[in-house]
Amino acid sequence: MEALKNKILAEGQAIGTEIVKVDSFLNHQIDAEFMYEIGKEFKTRFDGKELTKILTIEASGIAIAVCTSSFFGYLPVVFAKKAVPNTLVDGLYSSPVKSFTKDETYQIAIAKNFLSSDDKILIIDDLLAYGDAALALCDLAEQAGAHILGVGAVIEKEFQGGGNRVRAKGYTVESLAIIEKIENGKIIFKD
Amino acid sequence: MEALKNKILAEGQAIGTEIVKVDSFLNHQIDAEFMYEIGKEFKTRFDGKELTKILTIEASGIAIAVCTSSFFGYLPVVFAKKAVPNTLVDGLYSSPVKSFTKDETYQIAIAKNFLSSDDKILIIDDLLAYGDAALALCDLAEQAGAHILGVGAVIEKEFQGGGNRVRAKGYTVESLAIIEKIENGKIIFKD
Repeated sequence: MEALKNKILAEGQAIGTEIVKVDSFLNHQIDAEFMYEIGKEFKTRFDGKELTKILTIEASGIAIAVCTSSFFGYLPVVFAKKAVPNTLVDGLYSSPVKSFTKDETYQIAIAKNFLSSDDKILIIDDLLAYGDAALALCDLAEQAGAHILGVGAVIEKEFQGGGNRVRAKGYTVESLAIIEKIENGKIIFKD
Repeated sequence: MEALKNKILAEGQAIGTEIVKVDSFLNHQIDAEFMYEIGKEFKTRFDGKELTKILTIEASGIAIAVCTSSFFGYLPVVFAKKAVPNTLVDGLYSSPVKSFTKDETYQIAIAKNFLSSDDKILIIDDLLAYGDAALALCDLAEQAGAHILGVGAVIEKEFQGGGNRVRAKGYTVESLAIIEKIENGKIIFKD
């Protein structure tokens, strides 16, 4: 998605060789108009899929998922919650996520009544890096017996391998901008 | 907002005399189409305000704020983050929030570069209970010198006093459904 690549180059900040900061439009401040452009692009990428629900993770996934939903006939969105108390596991599907930025493992969870084996879902993620959050979302969906019809990421950092970890499980991954590497402070896209 | 009251009665769960669970459409699963109805209603309530930005708090505020933004010419949305590391305070405005459901105090924060004294903002909150999150959002905006042109809450639990705490600071609060009390498991709206 050319507009996204341009946006990343104009507003994104490469930090070291691992991190791309996009908090001016995606992770902290949200460019709402641009989120609809992203939603429209996901509609194109997953057109024809008979989805029943969009699954994402708080917090940055929510805006993207809701805007994407508006192009799919306003599908319900379910967001997995972070920081689930260990005492509150009844009625939840939960899965561990190892955060590479914070070097810690946390649980994400969804209430069982919002995902079932009848669901055909699209998983939406903002940043696909090592893939741990995306794989945990897949795990939640698998626990529910739901059918994963696709995984859409706004930005994939290919060099961290997460996209291919999800593809290796047999799922279709569509990433709207794929970063091949960060070199001397420059963001290099694939292609 | 009649449609909202009906939705709360149909899908909400009163727990004890304090809690209204609305996670089937607002806090966990999101009814995306209904979020646009809510956004349209906020447009009506705050029509004519020359806003530059919408401020909310992760996670449940994000969907509401983004849908509201679409009716205000796609204003940028900034969401305050919870769980800010104490070590990361440079370049942040932060404010403490006492959570009554979890009986703990946490910090919320926004990056200074996303809110300034030029901003005229609408604050969006999902549930206005004791008002601590809304007041902390006001505090962040005040620290930035931004002008608060209104506070919009989807549900106000009047009996917990948060709405009036915010009004007492001189801000206009518009709540789309005001719950007067919860009695014998029944949700009683104001009016």
